[in-house]
Amino acid sequence: MNASDRSAAAAGLAARYAAVRARTEALAAPLSAEDQCVQSMPDASPAKWHRAHTTWFFETFVLVPHAPGYAAFDPAFAFLFNSYYEAAGPRHARPRRGMLTRPSCARVADYRAHVDAAMAALLDGAGPAPGLAALVELGLQHEEQHQELLLTDILHALAQNPLRPAYDPDWRDPAAPEGPARWLDGPAGIVEIGHAGPGGAAGGGFAFDNETPRHRALLAPWRVADRPVTNGEWLAFLEAGGYREPLLWMADGWAARQAEGWEAPLYWERRDGAWLAFTLGGLRPLDPAAPVRHVSWYEADAFARWAGKRLPTEQEWEAAAGLPGFLAADGHVWQWTGSAYRPYPGFRPWEGAVGEYNGKFMIGQMVLRGGSLATPPGHARPTYRNFFPPGARWQFSGLRLAEDAA
Amino acid sequence: MNASDRSAAAAGLAARYAAVRARTEALAAPLSAEDQCVQSMPDASPAKWHRAHTTWFFETFVLVPHAPGYAAFDPAFAFLFNSYYEAAGPRHARPRRGMLTRPSCARVADYRAHVDAAMAALLDGAGPAPGLAALVELGLQHEEQHQELLLTDILHALAQNPLRPAYDPDWRDPAAPEGPARWLDGPAGIVEIGHAGPGGAAGGGFAFDNETPRHRALLAPWRVADRPVTNGEWLAFLEAGGYREPLLWMADGWAARQAEGWEAPLYWERRDGAWLAFTLGGLRPLDPAAPVRHVSWYEADAFARWAGKRLPTEQEWEAAAGLPGFLAADGHVWQWTGSAYRPYPGFRPWEGAVGEYNGKFMIGQMVLRGGSLATPPGHARPTYRNFFPPGARWQFSGLRLAEDAA
Amino acid sequence: MNASDRSAAAAGLAARYAAVRARTEALAAPLSAEDQCVQSMPDASPAKWHRAHTTWFFETFVLVPHAPGYAAFDPAFAFLFNSYYEAAGPRHARPRRGMLTRPSCARVADYRAHVDAAMAALLDGAGPAPGLAALVELGLQHEEQHQELLLTDILHALAQNPLRPAYDPDWRDPAAPEGPARWLDGPAGIVEIGHAGPGGAAGGGFAFDNETPRHRALLAPWRVADRPVTNGEWLAFLEAGGYREPLLWMADGWAARQAEGWEAPLYWERRDGAWLAFTLGGLRPLDPAAPVRHVSWYEADAFARWAGKRLPTEQEWEAAAGLPGFLAADGHVWQWTGSAYRPYPGFRPWEGAVGEYNGKFMIGQMVLRGGSLATPPGHARPTYRNFFPPGARWQFSGLRLAEDAA
Amino acid sequence: MNASDRSAAAAGLAARYAAVRARTEALAAPLSAEDQCVQSMPDASPAKWHRAHTTWFFETFVLVPHAPGYAAFDPAFAFLFNSYYEAAGPRHARPRRGMLTRPSCARVADYRAHVDAAMAALLDGAGPAPGLAALVELGLQHEEQHQELLLTDILHALAQNPLRPAYDPDWRDPAAPEGPARWLDGPAGIVEIGHAGPGGAAGGGFAFDNETPRHRALLAPWRVADRPVTNGEWLAFLEAGGYREPLLWMADGWAARQAEGWEAPLYWERRDGAWLAFTLGGLRPLDPAAPVRHVSWYEADAFARWAGKRLPTEQEWEAAAGLPGFLAADGHVWQWTGSAYRPYPGFRPWEGAVGEYNGKFMIGQMVLRGGSLATPPGHARPTYRNFFPPGARWQFSGLRLAEDAA
Repeated sequence: MNASDRSAAAAGLAARYAAVRARTEALAAPLSAEDQCVQSMPDASPAKWHRAHTTWFFETFVLVPHAPGYAAFDPAFAFLFNSYYEAAGPRHARPRRGMLTRPSCARVADYRAHVDAAMAALLDGAGPAPGLAALVELGLQHEEQHQELLLTDILHALAQNPLRPAYDPDWRDPAAPEGPARWLDGPAGIVEIGHAGPGGAAGGGFAFDNETPRHRALLAPWRVADRPVTNGEWLAFLEAGGYREPLLWMADGWAARQAEGWEAPLYWERRDGAWLAFTLGGLRPLDPAAPVRHVSWYEADAFARWAGKRLPTEQEWEAAAGLPGFLAADGHVWQWTGSAYRPYPGFRPWEGAVGEYNGKFMIGQMVLRGGSLATPPGHARPTYRNFFPPGARWQFSGLRLAEDAA
Repeated sequence: MNASDRSAAAAGLAARYAAVRARTEALAAPLSAEDQCVQSMPDASPAKWHRAHTTWFFETFVLVPHAPGYAAFDPAFAFLFNSYYEAAGPRHARPRRGMLTRPSCARVADYRAHVDAAMAALLDGAGPAPGLAALVELGLQHEEQHQELLLTDILHALAQNPLRPAYDPDWRDPAAPEGPARWLDGPAGIVEIGHAGPGGAAGGGFAFDNETPRHRALLAPWRVADRPVTNGEWLAFLEAGGYREPLLWMADGWAARQAEGWEAPLYWERRDGAWLAFTLGGLRPLDPAAPVRHVSWYEADAFARWAGKRLPTEQEWEAAAGLPGFLAADGHVWQWTGSAYRPYPGFRPWEGAVGEYNGKFMIGQMVLRGGSLATPPGHARPTYRNFFPPGARWQFSGLRLAEDAA
Repeated sequence: MNASDRSAAAAGLAARYAAVRARTEALAAPLSAEDQCVQSMPDASPAKWHRAHTTWFFETFVLVPHAPGYAAFDPAFAFLFNSYYEAAGPRHARPRRGMLTRPSCARVADYRAHVDAAMAALLDGAGPAPGLAALVELGLQHEEQHQELLLTDILHALAQNPLRPAYDPDWRDPAAPEGPARWLDGPAGIVEIGHAGPGGAAGGGFAFDNETPRHRALLAPWRVADRPVTNGEWLAFLEAGGYREPLLWMADGWAARQAEGWEAPLYWERRDGAWLAFTLGGLRPLDPAAPVRHVSWYEADAFARWAGKRLPTEQEWEAAAGLPGFLAADGHVWQWTGSAYRPYPGFRPWEGAVGEYNGKFMIGQMVLRGGSLATPPGHARPTYRNFFPPGARWQFSGLRLAEDAA
Repeated sequence: MNASDRSAAAAGLAARYAAVRARTEALAAPLSAEDQCVQSMPDASPAKWHRAHTTWFFETFVLVPHAPGYAAFDPAFAFLFNSYYEAAGPRHARPRRGMLTRPSCARVADYRAHVDAAMAALLDGAGPAPGLAALVELGLQHEEQHQELLLTDILHALAQNPLRPAYDPDWRDPAAPEGPARWLDGPAGIVEIGHAGPGGAAGGGFAFDNETPRHRALLAPWRVADRPVTNGEWLAFLEAGGYREPLLWMADGWAARQAEGWEAPLYWERRDGAWLAFTLGGLRPLDPAAPVRHVSWYEADAFARWAGKRLPTEQEWEAAAGLPGFLAADGHVWQWTGSAYRPYPGFRPWEGAVGEYNGKFMIGQMVLRGGSLATPPGHARPTYRNFFPPGARWQFSGLRLAEDAA
């Protein structure tokens, strides 16, 4: 890259930085200071914390090592806003994030402005070195992930309130396709899976380390539904007694169902004989055509068994993503797969401080593919691996059916 | 009471109402909306909740039954802000009060203004009937109790923050007497205990039902310290290994000490070899002359045993309250007694909806006497019975020593 | 005491020792090795453990300090069979007693024989010194307490078995008086309470330290039922909705009822429309005339409130024990009182290693008076203070009603 | 199969039945009635329960449906000894198995004899139909699995005893190979995985449904150690601080390590500077050359990372099992793999009542391959899939290292 190219790249990165950071603030804007402070369960984080933690990420991994003379906004923030990086030192306990009434929302805004100014200066001029640009891009991808979590977590927090307040009364869910699912023949034989990394032949652009290396996998003949399971289809499962029949469930799933009292997807409520669902727009009538969401892996697995089908593996999902007629639904729901979240063959975590980003979570979780209505546009891709424990329900998680070919 | 007297009484009550309500708002004023929303443990409540619940008390027990045409501010608030009155209907779960980011602080202020206006109208003119005046006075006493809890709970909430933010950086603790404790001979033989009720011979004025009926008790010869145990004295206990010697402790207390890891009173921190204590003014050096506070009954009991003394019973404490030289310390710390919180002989709860106020808590708790730096001036009296479980430490709780006379 | 008197006293003590020890073995005789090993909850102990612990008590507090040349049966047993004596060294965790499949029942029998032989030798001849005789008597009283616990705990253990096996199919409960309760005027004014200690004017004979010192108490006029509440009376409470009405209950009691799902006394079962109760003789039809048992303090308190009465205080109970017509029912059920278990005025624990016997449990528990069908004959007395937490139900615990006199 | 062949097969099956059943009794023989009754944790079962449950399996799935006129030994046993078969009706709660002091060991022996007699009659003569023979074989394989569990669980139970009693003081662990591990090139490319089922081309003989169907998998180039990791190698990890360095661990593993206080493999104890391990033969010096055992998947994974290696996948392990020089160590330790326990492509659970055998556990667990010193000889095979949650340590579980080929 010559100086001119680098300068153009730098300008592009600076603009992207500004846009991503502004989007976070826009997402938080409808929330009061109180809304932004609350933590509704240990797995969720306050909106204010998301805003500060993403800022800490740039401060810690970009500015401190790479911006000469950078002065930390507040030395105490390293303790408060480190999420899980052992190499970055001790940190505030995750389940206690909701205790942080201070720093206030206003001071977190100051923190963001301080870091944004330093980042703008760093990105100005001839542009950062390629390694630094990759770090900045990682910080932006990281912030986009937290944008989804911010929405996911605030929906959970507001759902704890008997008043059922809306995040945004004018919120519009994306339109869902009508009509029955159609079945597509999935690719079989040896397929290429995973991301080749920046500049690589397949994909190019950014990828997380957990999507690499690109490698070959062997698929047996199979078929896949062209779209996710809908609320209407889920209602049929529910009304057929799906939540009462242990033989449909994994043993752990049935135990979770009983312990938690699951009778329907999270956020569903029955009032006066009608099913409603709590959404970012408040409590609304259930749309039978929309993809079902907020179901755990256990529920998705039980549904598939009831339907005489199964969940696709993550390799199958990825291989099918390019098929004509395959609606990825990445603006609707993440789709549980039958695959445990484990490293790809030949996986190597990133080097250095960000090496803890993904690798240490590769146990006890199931992979989801697709994307959701809370995912920032352009963030997901067919090789993207999302992952949560099989009992998690507060994500925008649904399912798609698959089956073995005869 | 003639019309003129009633009018004067009504004016007095209206003025007192206004003053008490204003004091609550003044106590909450240093707190941000975030500070007011947080709940640091199930036993504590958010400041905003205290402000709303005390308002609900007037709305529910005074305005709805006694103010013709009163329109509830928001029907949903009855569910949100009922504390524990079974007779007043279902209510939001206590440990979930911190989830209520809405109604906002501002809307709670509106709620208070709405109720205050209706109360002012009700108290205006010829004045309320005597029964109603008593209910209003109960509401004010209730609000004063919550004023203390508001300070107690916010101290606990702020203590969860690694930044150790002050409620009020200019906060001044009351001055404590210097010098060693002196021992007073306690009253012995038959003494009169408890409150005679409004207009009664002993005391007069307001009393809670748990202070009644006034009755006789028999005391053996005993002695009592003229003032509470100090931080300096507690430090001697600590340094003598008091927290390491199980033989000094009740079995339940030792189990609590081990389970909770108690090594010093709550809020004490050792930094660079010096003891500090977190206070409403922030983290400050320990004042050896000040009464020790934030100790559980278990700790107080162990300290007394180590000192070769015991805690006074609540009857002893009350009987000694009038002795020359007895510093009640009711502006410093509540003092644990050796008495379990049980009904007095002949006790009858109040009639009607407020009958749940005290009686149903008369098990599993120990009585404290005195008052604290967080108690509103004039709120406590010698017959006043405060009570908490023996493991509670977040109250402004200390102790005073007693002993049997030879 | 001259030599002849001492010899006679020694022979008496040796005979009593043999009788008490034999009674323990007789109580354990119907139990298999498996029955004797199981621990059904942390608060209960295996029968085998009771047999070994009572033996350890003699070994530790009598033989080791007082029998020259005594050789411990197995040094490891001090760790296994110390219950809660901090001064006697570390010990096996209480909730893990059921893990001790070894030593076997047979080896515990050997342990008992070993200690019995050494005790016989010690008690032989001229007789022990008076202090030693008191220690031996304490050991026997201690063993009698464990005889009751052995029956109480095995009933609980067998109740966990869906087969509902009987401890003794031929077990006979004591006969209960028929007919309605009669009300007696209780003693009022100043009464003497407590035990004067061995050789004292009131009582004489053995007493635990918690029954001392004898002291004066002041009682207001009151009345007491001549007998405990019956199963039939309890059934009326149950059928009147007593388990569904929160206003009858203490707040803690209602919470316990909901958390534990209490719908009837422990061991009651409804089958084919009839109430049965699991007893030492197995599952049997409920006897309406028999005193209700296996109720918690919370339930007893709620029943009394429903009946418009109250529980007597322990002082009242003791003062009434000598009234004509007062059936102590000490062969039927322990009777919950309204008194928290706290030290008497002037209480001093025993000196030395047995000082932990009672004193350290004087918090968080309520006093029961009387005795039960599981109490060894002659063990209890009117000054006897039994005590358990208010939620305990597995004891043979019932209640008696009292009320204030007009 | 003609009549003569069937008769011979039947005689063979009857003999095998007798041998397997006798082996169970031989394994239980060193245990007292008390030993056989105890349950040391919810995941473990009493030895007596293993003996009864395996008998229930034959009674429920073979005798009741296939032996005309068979009379159940005791109808209550269906409730007591059903493990997890929803289709077979309700059952005693798993964590409460240790409460079953009755039926006694002796009665369980009677139960076994009753069922054995009925089975002998059923297997006598012309021999069972092929489908029935398969069910009987399943029952025997099932009993062999419980033989391993019986040893595994009793080791855990005896380890709870401070006396550290031996299951068998003369127990001899199998000899382990000496010397450093050697690295073998693993098979790469497309390999055949899984069992073809009875009579199939690869394997033949019995297999569990979870080993089927046989299918193709694709392996990248890799290498594998010829033997499991040893105690001596584990000691180097421990001494290098492996249990103190969070960066070596999965996040869930580190959390488990901290919550459980893991500092070494389960059953290791350090006394007087030397490491001992509790074994079926009691507490013994650690053998550095023996395969390490009783480590969780989390520990195994951390060890591999520390060593710069990884765990093999289950497909890799199976493909390598036939390599020259590969010591399967199936008489020593099960070896954790990097594979989550999920169904093979095309998996179908068995039909009918035994369909719950394996399939409903295919989530949240990791696969182990090999076999252990507690596995009955001849029970395991290269396609065998054992599985446990990643935190389980009480199994005879170790690990083998693998690595990617350059």
